[in-house]
Amino acid sequence: MLNPNEWFTEIDEDNHSAFSFKIERKLHEEQTPFQKIEIYRTVGFGNLMVIDGFVMLSARDNFLYHEMMTHPVLYSHPSPSRVWIIGGGDCGSLQEVLKHPEVEEAVQIEIDERVTRLAERFFPELCRANDDPRAQLKFEDGIEWVKRSPPGSVEVIIVDSTDPLGPGEGLFTEDFYRDCLRCLSGDGLLIQQSESPLFHPHILHPMRKAMKSAGFKEVSTLFFPQPVYPSGWWSGTVAAKSGIGHPRERDIANKPFSTRYYNLAIHKAAFAAPDFFLKAVEEQETTG
Amino acid sequence: MLNPNEWFTEIDEDNHSAFSFKIERKLHEEQTPFQKIEIYRTVGFGNLMVIDGFVMLSARDNFLYHEMMTHPVLYSHPSPSRVWIIGGGDCGSLQEVLKHPEVEEAVQIEIDERVTRLAERFFPELCRANDDPRAQLKFEDGIEWVKRSPPGSVEVIIVDSTDPLGPGEGLFTEDFYRDCLRCLSGDGLLIQQSESPLFHPHILHPMRKAMKSAGFKEVSTLFFPQPVYPSGWWSGTVAAKSGIGHPRERDIANKPFSTRYYNLAIHKAAFAAPDFFLKAVEEQETTG
Repeated sequence: MLNPNEWFTEIDEDNHSAFSFKIERKLHEEQTPFQKIEIYRTVGFGNLMVIDGFVMLSARDNFLYHEMMTHPVLYSHPSPSRVWIIGGGDCGSLQEVLKHPEVEEAVQIEIDERVTRLAERFFPELCRANDDPRAQLKFEDGIEWVKRSPPGSVEVIIVDSTDPLGPGEGLFTEDFYRDCLRCLSGDGLLIQQSESPLFHPHILHPMRKAMKSAGFKEVSTLFFPQPVYPSGWWSGTVAAKSGIGHPRERDIANKPFSTRYYNLAIHKAAFAAPDFFLKAVEEQETTG
Repeated sequence: MLNPNEWFTEIDEDNHSAFSFKIERKLHEEQTPFQKIEIYRTVGFGNLMVIDGFVMLSARDNFLYHEMMTHPVLYSHPSPSRVWIIGGGDCGSLQEVLKHPEVEEAVQIEIDERVTRLAERFFPELCRANDDPRAQLKFEDGIEWVKRSPPGSVEVIIVDSTDPLGPGEGLFTEDFYRDCLRCLSGDGLLIQQSESPLFHPHILHPMRKAMKSAGFKEVSTLFFPQPVYPSGWWSGTVAAKSGIGHPRERDIANKPFSTRYYNLAIHKAAFAAPDFFLKAVEEQETTG
């Protein structure tokens, strides 16, 4: 029915469903020391990056993810001058971060340099800020980076990782969050992609619990659509050293860049949690 | 790759993508005078209804659609005593409507009786309110129904239709909306499913325009996740005879039934529109 020569399919084994893209051709494939990266040219979604068989991003809809992983947290912090992006090798989050004039330094710590090199080649529209003098691209292990960094060295940490499999696994642990907490300045914020609210509660809720156990004062999940990810609905979880605080409404109204999804109303709306999610959170807090 | 004996696949020809469900078996197939209906037992999504090759609903995730097509509009109306559901043959919207004690009469006008009979057999969990004395199940053309009904006969109209193809086509026209407007009482509200904000702007924006041209004073679109529909992100558009009004917050806080997705925060958040959507609305209003 779907000829594998004409379609790329990601099967979600846990949910017994699959999402497929019609492809023009495979543009690239390589095995790096960390993972297998494939790039396709699709008919309907532009270029597509796949890592170890899982869709990472498409040219068509990555704006949803990248805007929601960056602007809510940057506009919630009173003065986000130093930002780290752990993972994020496609540079899409870095580019959004550097749109904020308050940012003086943005460090991307990606373990696999090949992700970035391939993004530069196949997703140049995400890499336009790589030469910004405020940007630093480090190719090393984010877990080691936060372990050895001095206390209070950053205002915002964005954990833009793969799923908790392979190199991303250690980024979902209490130890990692404790190191992040130490690295954050007093009103520091962290956001991490936290999978599908519907398909991955077994990842999302333990992650929230680990963030709290690590000592974060406030943990809040935001929700957004993401068609190319399983269920088409995704989340990010924000953890605050002291508190998340209100969005800087006036700065959002006057932001010196345009967005396609994000705006003030979306910022506030994204934190509205569905009833089934609130019940699961309550249950976890009761049972520990 | 996906063996067609083991998977049901809906191909989205316009977006060159496809969504597939692993199936245990096909439970039923019939050609009615209106359309072809298939029912599958899936492995991950419970029972699945497909009409003319398009996924209509799954047991697993229809709560998102049915809650968002009913509760926001019913809790926005000050006193929703009479409700019509045009289409909605699976009875999921009817069931949600009848959870509201303010509702005295709910009429479901479905053109194809077989949809309802098959829902009773394969989705009994959606049909628990069919015997409610306030419920009336009519099997006739919704377009004719609104054409011949007297003015001011209903407070809320829910247009729970298929896509604008086949029997659903006439439900997306200015003539139909003008008839609906006449049937609504003074502060009457209509909601209609309005497809994917990302994949179907060519349906959504003309629909909004037709509602305004028909004389509705206020038109506002709400957004919600729906994994089994193309892009995983869906919308409903609310049209108000006088105005949409604020949600009845106290009634929502004390609602005598439980929900899985809907709550007051979700109600408000659902109306937050993405920037690309606002720009398209603005453009349409400028160019007419």
